[in-house]
Amino acid sequence: MPSSPSPLAHLLGCRYPIVAGGMAWCSGAKLAAAVSAAGGLGLIGGASMDADLFRRHIRKARQLTSRPVGVNIPLTFHQAEALAAVAIDEAVPIVFTSAGSPRRFTPEFKARGIKVFHVAPSPALACKCEAAGVDGVVVEGFEAGGHNAHEELTTLVLVPQVVDAVNIPVLAAGGIGDGRQMAAALALGADGVQIGTRFAMTQESSAHPAFKEYCAAAGSDCTRLVLKKNIPVRMMANRLRDRIEAAEAAGADREELLAILGRGRPEAGMFRGEIEEGMLEIGQVAGMLHDLPPVAAVFDRLLSEYEATRRALPKI
Amino acid sequence: MPSSPSPLAHLLGCRYPIVAGGMAWCSGAKLAAAVSAAGGLGLIGGASMDADLFRRHIRKARQLTSRPVGVNIPLTFHQAEALAAVAIDEAVPIVFTSAGSPRRFTPEFKARGIKVFHVAPSPALACKCEAAGVDGVVVEGFEAGGHNAHEELTTLVLVPQVVDAVNIPVLAAGGIGDGRQMAAALALGADGVQIGTRFAMTQESSAHPAFKEYCAAAGSDCTRLVLKKNIPVRMMANRLRDRIEAAEAAGADREELLAILGRGRPEAGMFRGEIEEGMLEIGQVAGMLHDLPPVAAVFDRLLSEYEATRRALPKI
Repeated sequence: MPSSPSPLAHLLGCRYPIVAGGMAWCSGAKLAAAVSAAGGLGLIGGASMDADLFRRHIRKARQLTSRPVGVNIPLTFHQAEALAAVAIDEAVPIVFTSAGSPRRFTPEFKARGIKVFHVAPSPALACKCEAAGVDGVVVEGFEAGGHNAHEELTTLVLVPQVVDAVNIPVLAAGGIGDGRQMAAALALGADGVQIGTRFAMTQESSAHPAFKEYCAAAGSDCTRLVLKKNIPVRMMANRLRDRIEAAEAAGADREELLAILGRGRPEAGMFRGEIEEGMLEIGQVAGMLHDLPPVAAVFDRLLSEYEATRRALPKI
Repeated sequence: MPSSPSPLAHLLGCRYPIVAGGMAWCSGAKLAAAVSAAGGLGLIGGASMDADLFRRHIRKARQLTSRPVGVNIPLTFHQAEALAAVAIDEAVPIVFTSAGSPRRFTPEFKARGIKVFHVAPSPALACKCEAAGVDGVVVEGFEAGGHNAHEELTTLVLVPQVVDAVNIPVLAAGGIGDGRQMAAALALGADGVQIGTRFAMTQESSAHPAFKEYCAAAGSDCTRLVLKKNIPVRMMANRLRDRIEAAEAAGADREELLAILGRGRPEAGMFRGEIEEGMLEIGQVAGMLHDLPPVAAVFDRLLSEYEATRRALPKI
């Protein structure tokens, strides 16, 4: 165990350079606080909350842990403005923004001493984030669950390009579920990792138990990136995804796909446990995760696997 | 520098656990011999050769280097049988097979003392390869150029699953163009790497200079996996790919896509340098490679970057 945290961990205000992604329907106060208590940085996922609920989760997390807890605000969300106001009002120490311009809120957050990370799926966008004055970027590869980028760059190919392109800290995301994958991410030059799926599949995740169990039982080939004509989304196999894929194969346009989706599918799938008709957003790494441990156990494993991997990396 | 090669390198008959993929239109005797001379294992790519040409390249490689050189035989190729007979007749030391059943030729090769590796894009197929008696598997992720798997598992997610599933050596492939990516692959548990794109983009590659220069000039977002209704192929952006993607978006079926492809597109693009109308098969990592060095320089970089990465991997 090191005597002091890494520069990135110091910036994040935690012990290990491990962030739990702020995921819609999974990342409530309970998960975020458990991650921060374990030595990482937990994020409350604003995408599935209105301003009042967001505020309640921020306050609840503070009751659950004395360590810093951050938030995620997707900028395309219609309530982004209201969530940003809550984050400022509650003096949240760090905000992760995604899907939208990094210039939108960064100056305001920075002026109030709030650190800002933005999610970038390409080297070009990472450079724009740096120019916008963010403290760091999350670079998320094709493997990642939920909303994804049109570029389809995988974490292995994307991370080194971003590391070479910017001079700010880089968190690798997408496909990181164990300590070997975390070591791979750091070998690629990332300063730390943002982990989603592994934390969505914990006891503290607020996702519905039926969704979590469905993920734990899924095989290697369980997810696919679909809806590429709209905003690409990686989701678990189920009847809804079958219909989407069949429509896409037949040449369905944006409007037809939106009609299939209707409204409220992510909540139905991930929060209410409607396995076949809900939208089940999860990363490709779910196919190799077959249990639902507590967050503390995830940290124990990540750290011990990471260190074993680091020591075993051979001279060639 | 280690005093003795790794167990995998020993099995491959070379110094470093680095194999150059046997790529159609790129991997002639010149490239394969240069890789073996530099301490890796070079493969002659049988997919673009008839039996006579294949034999000439095997013999020419022997004139160029005293180190072992292997071959790649795609089992779906209509001349696979004839190429296998040449490999046996010429007593090639090691054969890499792909795209088809690993049981087809493995017993015959093994009976004659020829080592066999088979390409597997999923843990399930890797297990079948092991059961078929191969000496090792190449696990190739979504990032890889040319023909690819329907599963779309990325190297980061695929390699650990295969490492956990089999007890034979595992070569990671797809997205490995520099020493950081090589270190990432070994962190994931691979015993070595198979590298395609980086060697396709060398002076010794037999690809047309116009194709190589087009790849070196390409940006981050240059490749896409298309033809998923047929056999998925990762290819570089050009007019041909635009037509394929437009047809796919409109719901074109297999037959319509085959009509767009016609015949001889890979040769036209990669060997004759018809940049806009040929099929330009290359991996996603091409987007971060911007030069065409000699093979020896690629090895120098891979090895020094790998070692620097290994030493710098932090305790956390």
